[in-house]
Formats: sequence, C-alpha cells, structure tokens
Amino acid sequence: MASASLLKDLKPNIGVFTDPEHNLYIDAASPSVEELSAGNALKEGEVVIKIRSTGICGSDVHFWHAGCIGPMIVEDKHILGHESAGEIIAVHSSVTSLKPGDRVAVEPNIPCHTCQPCLTGRYNGCEKVLFLSTPPVPGLLRRYVTHPAIWCHKLPSSMSYSDGALLEPLSVALAAMDRSGIKMGDSVLICGAGPIGLISLLCAKAAGAEPIVVTDIDAGRLAFAEELVKGKPGTVKTYLVPRGRSEEENAKEIVELFGLEPDVALECTGVESSIGAAIWAVRFGGTVFVVGVGKNELRFPFMRLSTREVDLKFQYRYCNTWPRAIRLLSSGLLGDVRRLVTHRFNLEEAVKAFETSADAKTGAIKVMIVNDD
Amino acid sequence: MASASLLKDLKPNIGVFTDPEHNLYIDAASPSVEELSAGNALKEGEVVIKIRSTGICGSDVHFWHAGCIGPMIVEDKHILGHESAGEIIAVHSSVTSLKPGDRVAVEPNIPCHTCQPCLTGRYNGCEKVLFLSTPPVPGLLRRYVTHPAIWCHKLPSSMSYSDGALLEPLSVALAAMDRSGIKMGDSVLICGAGPIGLISLLCAKAAGAEPIVVTDIDAGRLAFAEELVKGKPGTVKTYLVPRGRSEEENAKEIVELFGLEPDVALECTGVESSIGAAIWAVRFGGTVFVVGVGKNELRFPFMRLSTREVDLKFQYRYCNTWPRAIRLLSSGLLGDVRRLVTHRFNLEEAVKAFETSADAKTGAIKVMIVNDD
Amino acid sequence: MASASLLKDLKPNIGVFTDPEHNLYIDAASPSVEELSAGNALKEGEVVIKIRSTGICGSDVHFWHAGCIGPMIVEDKHILGHESAGEIIAVHSSVTSLKPGDRVAVEPNIPCHTCQPCLTGRYNGCEKVLFLSTPPVPGLLRRYVTHPAIWCHKLPSSMSYSDGALLEPLSVALAAMDRSGIKMGDSVLICGAGPIGLISLLCAKAAGAEPIVVTDIDAGRLAFAEELVKGKPGTVKTYLVPRGRSEEENAKEIVELFGLEPDVALECTGVESSIGAAIWAVRFGGTVFVVGVGKNELRFPFMRLSTREVDLKFQYRYCNTWPRAIRLLSSGLLGDVRRLVTHRFNLEEAVKAFETSADAKTGAIKVMIVNDD
Amino acid sequence: MASASLLKDLKPNIGVFTDPEHNLYIDAASPSVEELSAGNALKEGEVVIKIRSTGICGSDVHFWHAGCIGPMIVEDKHILGHESAGEIIAVHSSVTSLKPGDRVAVEPNIPCHTCQPCLTGRYNGCEKVLFLSTPPVPGLLRRYVTHPAIWCHKLPSSMSYSDGALLEPLSVALAAMDRSGIKMGDSVLICGAGPIGLISLLCAKAAGAEPIVVTDIDAGRLAFAEELVKGKPGTVKTYLVPRGRSEEENAKEIVELFGLEPDVALECTGVESSIGAAIWAVRFGGTVFVVGVGKNELRFPFMRLSTREVDLKFQYRYCNTWPRAIRLLSSGLLGDVRRLVTHRFNLEEAVKAFETSADAKTGAIKVMIVNDD
Repeated sequence: MASASLLKDLKPNIGVFTDPEHNLYIDAASPSVEELSAGNALKEGEVVIKIRSTGICGSDVHFWHAGCIGPMIVEDKHILGHESAGEIIAVHSSVTSLKPGDRVAVEPNIPCHTCQPCLTGRYNGCEKVLFLSTPPVPGLLRRYVTHPAIWCHKLPSSMSYSDGALLEPLSVALAAMDRSGIKMGDSVLICGAGPIGLISLLCAKAAGAEPIVVTDIDAGRLAFAEELVKGKPGTVKTYLVPRGRSEEENAKEIVELFGLEPDVALECTGVESSIGAAIWAVRFGGTVFVVGVGKNELRFPFMRLSTREVDLKFQYRYCNTWPRAIRLLSSGLLGDVRRLVTHRFNLEEAVKAFETSADAKTGAIKVMIVNDD
Repeated sequence: MASASLLKDLKPNIGVFTDPEHNLYIDAASPSVEELSAGNALKEGEVVIKIRSTGICGSDVHFWHAGCIGPMIVEDKHILGHESAGEIIAVHSSVTSLKPGDRVAVEPNIPCHTCQPCLTGRYNGCEKVLFLSTPPVPGLLRRYVTHPAIWCHKLPSSMSYSDGALLEPLSVALAAMDRSGIKMGDSVLICGAGPIGLISLLCAKAAGAEPIVVTDIDAGRLAFAEELVKGKPGTVKTYLVPRGRSEEENAKEIVELFGLEPDVALECTGVESSIGAAIWAVRFGGTVFVVGVGKNELRFPFMRLSTREVDLKFQYRYCNTWPRAIRLLSSGLLGDVRRLVTHRFNLEEAVKAFETSADAKTGAIKVMIVNDD
Repeated sequence: MASASLLKDLKPNIGVFTDPEHNLYIDAASPSVEELSAGNALKEGEVVIKIRSTGICGSDVHFWHAGCIGPMIVEDKHILGHESAGEIIAVHSSVTSLKPGDRVAVEPNIPCHTCQPCLTGRYNGCEKVLFLSTPPVPGLLRRYVTHPAIWCHKLPSSMSYSDGALLEPLSVALAAMDRSGIKMGDSVLICGAGPIGLISLLCAKAAGAEPIVVTDIDAGRLAFAEELVKGKPGTVKTYLVPRGRSEEENAKEIVELFGLEPDVALECTGVESSIGAAIWAVRFGGTVFVVGVGKNELRFPFMRLSTREVDLKFQYRYCNTWPRAIRLLSSGLLGDVRRLVTHRFNLEEAVKAFETSADAKTGAIKVMIVNDD
Repeated sequence: MASASLLKDLKPNIGVFTDPEHNLYIDAASPSVEELSAGNALKEGEVVIKIRSTGICGSDVHFWHAGCIGPMIVEDKHILGHESAGEIIAVHSSVTSLKPGDRVAVEPNIPCHTCQPCLTGRYNGCEKVLFLSTPPVPGLLRRYVTHPAIWCHKLPSSMSYSDGALLEPLSVALAAMDRSGIKMGDSVLICGAGPIGLISLLCAKAAGAEPIVVTDIDAGRLAFAEELVKGKPGTVKTYLVPRGRSEEENAKEIVELFGLEPDVALECTGVESSIGAAIWAVRFGGTVFVVGVGKNELRFPFMRLSTREVDLKFQYRYCNTWPRAIRLLSSGLLGDVRRLVTHRFNLEEAVKAFETSADAKTGAIKVMIVNDD
C-alpha cells in the first residue's frame, strides 16, 4: 500500500510497443490507473514513478527492426525503453529512502541479490536479473511504472530529467572506463562516434586520457565529436575510416595520428573490421575493450592478439555506476553531455521519435522522449 | 676474454639446422672451437655454455615443417632449439655471478633493457629482443653457445640438465598461471593435453585448482594426463572431445563434468573450436587464457564473450619466470614433471629426435636431445 | 511456517553465555522449543538448524575474558560461537534450496544486500550486517538456531559436522590468501602458529607457496606446524621468535632462513613486534597482510614501509568463501585440516571446553563443542 | 668521446653543496671544464647536460638542515638537487637518441637494469640504484652534469626548462595516482597543500576525482589550493586542520565536508595525526596512499585499519613516469602547474634560494634555481 502519494489526476497509462512483426505503436500499458489508485500495484520496497524523460537506445531500435539481439528475442508485444528518469508519485509503506515528489533516475535492472555474480559485486551478470526492455520484461517507455526504490537514484536539483535519462548510456561508458583500466595520461583510441562513443569520449577527457583519437566511417559524426570537445585542454584527433582499407592499414594510420601505439582502445561499434583495427593498433600488453555489440560470431586477428599479449575484454550493461554517474554529470566534470540530445519528442510522438533515431540522415545522436504533462 | 675456463678438449661445434626447403640436418655451427679457444667469442657479460640437454618444442617442428610461425619466417639455414640447460665452460672477465663448472638453465632471450616493455617489467614484449631459435636468431641446439650471464640461471644440485631444459616449457605455463589469475579453489579447464597442457595441469594442481577438467581429441593423451596426477589429492576429470560436436555442446558437457561453470580456462591448443568451447564454458566474468598459437585469424563467439564479460587473454613467451620455476621444480611441488620426457636422443641423433617428436604415433610428449660427451 | 520438519522430540534449547561480569555459563536460549514447534520462529527464507559442531574461536574467549574487541562490547548476557555446522530440522515454506535432514555449514553473517559494500561484493563491510556472536547479536553455541537459508551451505557426505565447523576459520584464511595475492612459487612468511596461522599454512601449501617460514614464540606450536606438513613436498621452515630481539634482527634471521626476502607475509598474531618484523622482512614491493587483531593502536616502522613500498593490508572476516572452502576441504587438497581439532567436548561441557581453549598449557589448537544427541 | 658538441665558452663548473656541519655553499664541482673539453667525461651512453632549471625539494632542505633522511646520511660534502632540466651540450658517440642542442628533463636515477625490481618494472626499488642528490651520489644543482641519455627525456618546444624541472615532483604525484588506483568519479582526500599535495590536487582534478577535499594546518596554503583550481569544473573543498582535535574528530569533519566517506586518501604530509585522520575517514575497503615521509616510526589506528579493510600503501620515488608526465604537462590537461613556482633565483644565488624555500613565512611553494647564462 502506498503511504503517501501524488496518485490523483492520472492520465491513462500508455506504453511504446513493438512486436514480432516489427510494428511500433502506442497502446495501453500496465499498471493501470485503477491498479495504481487502488494501491495494489506496489510490492514491498517498490515505488511508482511517473516517467518524464526516456532516451532511445540503439538496442531499442534493433529490437524493433530485427526482433532480437543475440539470444534475446521479441516473442510477444513488448514495451521498449530503459534510459529513463521521472518523478516518484507513490511509495510502498516499507520505503523510507524516497517520497512522492522526489526526482529520480531509474536503473533499469532488478537483480536477485543472492546468486554468485550478485554476491561478488557484478550484479549485471545476475542469473535471474530482470532487465527492463529486454524481452519479455517490459521497458520504461510508459507514463507510469513500478520499480524497486533501491534502483531509483535521487537527482540533485541541478539535473534535469533528461540529464537523468542520460545516466544510463553514461553508465555504460563508466563501466567501460572502469574495467578497461584507463588512467590519466593513457593514450586512448575510441572506435565509433555514436552515442556511446561520444559519451566515452567525454569520459576519457574527464579521466585525463591523452592523446585521444576517435574513429568513424561518418565524417559528420567525427565533426560532432570535434565540436563536442572544442576548447577543452588536451589532444583529440579524428580518423575517418575509409572503405576498403585493411585493418592493418587503418591501424597504421591511427598509430601515426597518435605518434605512438595507444594503451587502450574503447571499441564502441561491435563491427569486426573496427575491432580488428583496434587490435592491430594498441601497444604490446594493451587492452581492446569492446563495448559495442553485433553479430554472434566475429573473426579476430588471433596471432596478433597472441604475440602482442593484447587483453580483449567486453562489457555487458553495468553495475554500481549510478552514484558515480550522478556525481560526474552534476559536477560538470564531463562537459557538455546535454549536447548529445539532438532531438526531443513528446511521449505521444514516440513513433516519430523512433523513426528519427533510426534514420542516419537525421544526424540524430540521442533522441529523447519526454512527458511534460 | 675468458677469465677462467674449461676450454680444452673441445669437440667441433655443431648445430641442428633447418632451411627454407624444410630440410633438417646437422652442420658446423658458430662459435667455432677456434674462436672459443682464442677467447674472442665473448663480449662483456657473456659466458660460453656447453649445452647438455635441449627439449624439442612444437614450434621447432613447425619451423621445420611449415617454415614459419605467423610473421616469423625461415629465410636461410637456421639453428633450432630454445629449451636448454648446460655447463658453463668459460666466462668473460666481467662476469662475477657465474664460473666455469656451474650448471645452468638458459633463458633463451636477450632483451634490450631500455624500451618501454623492458622498463615496465614485460621484457617478452621487448621491441628489439633476440629470441634464440626464432629466425634469424640461431637457436640453442648446438654443442657450444655464448649467452649473457644474466640469462643463465644456476641449477641446484637436485636438478638434472634435463630438468633444467624443462624450465622453458614450465616458464610458459607459469606465465599463463600468473597472468590468468588462477588461485586456489578456482575451477580450471585445461584445453589440450600436449606438453604445455600437461605441464599446466601440474601447475594448476600445485596452485590448488579444484576441480580441474582436461580436454583433448586424443584418448591416449588424456590417459597420460590421468596417469600423471594419479594418487594426488583433488579432482581431475578428462573430456575426450568428439569430432563433429558443436562448441556449445562440448561446453555443456564440460560444465556438467565440472558440476559448475569453470572460473578460468587455460587454452593450450590454439585451435578455433577449442577456444570457442572454452568461451562457452566459463562462468560470467570468467577468463579464457590462450597459451596455444595457430592460424593468423580465428572466429570467436563474440556475443557470448560480450554478454558474459569473458576476459580473453593471451600469452607471448614469458618473463621473470626462471627463478620461480627453479623453486617449484626443485622443491618437488609440481610432482613428477620428469615423466613428460618420453624420449631421449643424443645430439648426433637429432634428426631422429625430431622425427619422433613430429610423429603422433610415437606417443611422444617431450623429446629430449642430450649431449653427455 | 515450516513446510516440512524434524521438529519432534526436541530437547530444551540452551546456549553458552557470557556477560559483562565475565561469567561463562549455560542457560535457556531462543528460540524456545515451543516457538519452534508452533512454527512461528521462521521468517521468509529462514531455516531451523540443530547445531551439531561448533569450534571455539579466540574472539569467543576474548569476549569472555576482556568483555570487548575494539568497539564491540558485551553489554548484556550474550551467546558466543560462530564456527558451526548442523542439521536442518525445519524450513520456511519459501525455502526451496534446503530441506529437513540436510547437513549444512553456517556462514554466521546476515548482510543487508543493498548497501554499497554489499552491492560491490564485499558484504563483510555491510553497514547493517548482523554477525552472529558479535554483541548484541547472539551466537551459534545453541542447540537450535534460525538462520537464512542462503547463509547455510550444504556439506557433501564426505565432510563431518566438525569439518563443517572448520570452514569458518578456513574462510578467514582463504580471504587472506585471496586478498594478499599469494600465487604459486611465492615465498611466504606466516607469523603465528595458532589456529589461523596453521590453517593459513595448509592453505599456503595448497596454493604452491615455496618456500614457507612459520614463526611463533612457542616452540610447541612450531613443532605442531612441522608435524602438520610432514611428508608434503616443498619447503617449510620454522623460526622461534626469541624474547628481546629487535624487529630488524628477527627479520634478518627470517630472511636468512628463506635465502631471500619473502614476497608476502601473512601476519596472524596482530602483535606489534611481529607485524614490525614482517615489514622489515618482505622484499621491495612486497605485501604484509595482517589477519590478526589486537590493540587499538600500533606503532609501525613507517620509513621502512615507505622506502620499500610495502603494501599493508588487513582482513575483516570474509565474504564469498564457503563454496570455495567446501571444495578445498572436501577434495583433500588442504591436507589434514582435522588435526587442528585437538579437543572435543559435549555442549553440556561448554564451560570446560572454553577453559581448555583459554589455557595455553593444554596445547589446545582448536576446541570443538559437539552435540551428538 | 663526444661526437658533436657545444663544448665551447664553458664557465667553470660549480655546484650547490651541503655538508655534515649543515653548511650550504657554492663550490667547484665535477666534471671540470677541462675534463669536459678533453672529451673524457663521457662513458658509453652518456651525455653532458647544461642544467638550466632546478627546483628545490623539501628533501634537499632536509639534507641541509637535518643531515639525513632515514638511513640516507650526509657524511661528506654533498651536492643537492634532483628536479632539473637543461640543454644537451655533448653526447658520447654511442648516443643516437639525443644531440647537442636538445632540451631535456633529467630523470635523476641510474638503475642497474638487471636486479629483480628492475626486471619486474619497478626500477625505483633497484638494489644498486644511483639516485642523484641522495648521499653519496652528487645531485644536479651544478652547471654541467653527465648522465645516461636514456634518463634524459626530450622536452617539446611548448615546455620551458622550468616546466621540465617540474616533471620530477609531478612524477611523484603520478606514481601516487597510478598506484593508489584513483579513477574518475572517486572521492579523494588530499592531506597537505605543500608542493606535492598541490600537484596531486591538479592531478586528481585531471583524473576526474569528484569531490576532492584538501587539508592543511596552514590557511594560506589552503587559499593557494583554492586559487589554483578556481574556475575549473567539479568540487574542491578545503579543511583547515585545527590544533588539538583528535584524528577521529578531524575525520568526522572531513567526511561531513565530502558528504560521504572518501574512496582514497593521498597523504602528502607524512605526519602521524594526518595519516591517522585519513585512516579514520576513508570508506570500508578504501585506500590510504602515503606519499609523504617523516619519522622512522609512527603509531597507526590498527583496529580501524583492520575492521575497515583499509589498504595502506606507500610510494618511494617513481618509475616510468616521465613520458606520461610530459604528455600531461605539455597538453595543458593539468592546468596551471606553473603557478606552483613562487620564487626564482639564479644559480649564483642558490643559498638565498634555499633560505627562501626553508622559511615558511615566505609563502614559497616551489623555488626554482635557474641558469640563463
């Protein structure tokens, strides 16, 4: 039962759905206003959030277009969205850490707390995790959602709801920064200037990486990257990956841009040839840290990995990043993260928002769906 | 100039050669007895070693049969061998750590000491390293070689020259044990029961791995593995990899044998399907540590690596392992390492030794070439 | 409510108490037989354990004699004991992992699962942990206790209840082994041959430490240590710490015994002069890992720590050790851990058991209190 | 013999000496102009540097005033100075990496390259290291010095000689940053706002630490710290340590300033009460990294270290920091490091420079001795 609430004047709950036939549409969603008003919707430890801002992730578009990501398959009508922030409008009586009116970012996972990955501090590997928006667990692109209070992180007043929604892609980048071991003065190659690549670029700058080279196959994205760090101290160069050049040749060009072999590559594309170039580029004992995802199988330059002792590491979601992400974003240390939001749409315009996000010609980096009712 | 010496009654120096036409033969080698006797052969810090025992490595056979390993190519007549121990018979006047008569194991590398890998403690990545037996640097399968004293490690009296020669493959295994982070109580998968797999098995036992599963496609090798650890406390199971079963199916069987998903896989084959099975088998956040080498490019199950945060690491030779290897071998902690030596031949019989090593039907694990003159 | 149970023919529940006046006595304890029989004793996720074996820890004796350990103070009558194993006699209906009749070892902590230490895999630092036997949380020296199923670890049939009770001190040693980074071939100094020192010795042997030196001020304990590892491969030497010798002098003698400066010291006494000697003994960049506890403040040789870059680390209880401990103990890898149990008493003789444990003249290492009703 | 040189019009070589009687004076120094001109001064791999800028370190003042630091004792007349940059004026014929006219920073150590610390990448622990200015090895406060080329690091044109001299204290801070494991978003306590504390503050900012608290007993130094980071994004607070408050009380105030328990403390004073406060302040599992040096023995809050698993680590000089330091300083990432130089004197005024550095009333942070002849 909700101890205190803002559960009045609620609009009907709706969500943004896809389905196995690759439709995308808005429809009625759980929990219903009736359930919410009756106070039955909440279990121990849970809160009701009115979602105010949600970013569209490449994986949302992929579920819509391809119907699956690796083993995760859209087998029924399915709500998308996992980059959200909103306002607490009700809390279960057991919840003391939050109250109605609090502004929070949503960490979109509910791990079990008791399996080996959970107990060893890597709850992203939880064997029973519910990850919101990964089928069959519904996502956050709704008006109202219920969620455990522990996975709602209070936003300081300096942060907007859209800032709060950005904490999710920032969490991916922070997990990569942490586990790739980048430290100040490391030379860092960033492959890919999409949303994760760009936010990783801001993170690498904030962590003192020097120099940095960013690669992409799209000159516009590289221009965006340059603009993003303009005026900041330190060195950021870009490399436009040409069609038809070999991994080794690209690596050679990249190393020349650096003036040395980079210590770490943050690979944000998941594309075979890009990972391969990163492997050829890094120094002996360097790390290629792959954040991007893609095909089930890829071909890697094995003997190069072997004779150079390149560590190849991978990231799956994140854990324990939100508090750190809030500190970094709210302090201004990361610079102008907000510029990644190139487009905004109302919840009712969600289909248009997805079309914009999916269309390379729009130049969209991060499309934000907002609910300012 | 040699300060003191045993440089009398020397036989002609000979070596075991291969060439770009895949011949294998014994021929006259440097340094000549004349050079040695004249005392000109030694530079500052060097010693003359009479090689007494040399193990044949798979890479020696590969240079002979294939003429290359990755970018390392036999382009001229070339002396093989890098697993050796012998007797010091002369030292340069600048050498104080060794004297004629000392029994030593040879660490077959001469790094530069001043490049970044050298200064950061990973001299196996030295940009200018001379690695004996990698073309064009001649190997150790000679009667007499000169070598820097610093890369000659004194053997305790309890160790034979053949024990000393085993320190080289043991060094490969120790480097893998160290960098793979195996600790007591870890469940460890060992892929491949060849010389490196078997010595890794003994290392994993000595390090308290529990349980251990060893895989191979050859039942005889698995039987050898079981025999090698018979009577020791703890659990070692074997898995005969059947032809035609998928990586995932093999992984499933392996996990069932373990009763859990292993923490670490030591991959000692370098074969694509074996690495793939290891990737499918290890736990979330586990490590697949690849010691084996093979083709220039391999296909890996990328999305499995990604969604399971499997660390993929590789070993190139070794550094700083000999003192530790001597402690472990001489103390008896590793068990019966000597049983890996299945065949012995005199230096004059080197061609026969190589034929035995290269012929799977002989059941050879480690073939040792000795010089007991 | 208990779904199935062995809750019949229960004897009155009793416990072993101390109090602020340093008394030690047996008295009636919770939960009562009535509560247990009524089925009210269990909350969600809990089980009832009939405790069958409990080891006496130095901290139990310390709470009795001194009334406190650091900030943890006996302020009321208080049940001791946290090294226990027993039989499940009832489970809450929500519990599926255990059933009556199961034999389990008890991990004596109940962390919150949601604070930062819990979420980052170090639940021993949980801000709200209930640690059984640390005032005011009652300990396990009772006939019957209730406990969360998740913190009860099933014993394989090869392990006795006393073996199960030994998993707790073994967990302390395993935590130390893990966080001290000891790896095979490391030279390891073990300071103190009490229960933790001895079990650490067995662990260090199982992990391939070579050589090992054990120190103590008591010749009998060192003789016990030597006996414990007799016949095992590898090197264990002992050093009887003389009265009145300086830390530096002791360190010098220890280094001479080793023949080198040890890589790691496991300090199991918590005594200032012993920690100091360890700091003086280890190599540049070595680690002194302090398991022992003692006075609130100690004096350390600061400039030695500084000019030698000695890492000084500390252990507080343990986390995630039981599954590994069970694997290691049941496999026989650790050797004869059971020999640490020098004395056994029935639960009704608990006072005598504590007196034996507290009296150095008895030669007691580990005193076990059993309940074979 | 020098292959090419600028060895003409040399002034007499002089140096800044102290002695066991605590005198400080300028006197003739080696190598003499005659030796230099004759070309005998250089051994293989060496160069002649005309020193152009040298910072005064607290240790220089300490050698002058106290005659020793720990076991390092001034037993004869002794040249001070180890924070230097200058111009190459001659090189031995074996040197190819440098030529006369090159501008270099001097790494003031000559390790052996072959002992265990050297081979494992920690040459600051070299058993035979010659560290310039540590008795009896003469320091760099001379007009001309000879030094191995490998320990001379080329300066980019954007860096002045004084910038080059600052690379030495920056190296201390970088070593601390590296080994303390500080990463972006970590909350960092910096104890002490002297030269090392202030340069560590700039490093922590550049590495994305957030928030940061700096402590000192001197309000002027804290004001200097605030001024140094003014206008930068992120949070830096200061805490004036009052006389007579306990370590625990100071820790409590510091934690309140942070709003949380800091992850890492960089202790830059070496003072017992400051280290103690840091130990009380950091979170469970946090790190207190001690850069400062001081008395031979200190008292630490042992039970706090133990029950909180605080890692206590120490720094001795540095290794492999110069290339990274040059990248960071020349790129501008560190901000206004030059402001640390509060006073400049000519080499002939060295005594006055030392008096200024040693006198707290001058407000000196870093005093630079320059030679602009």
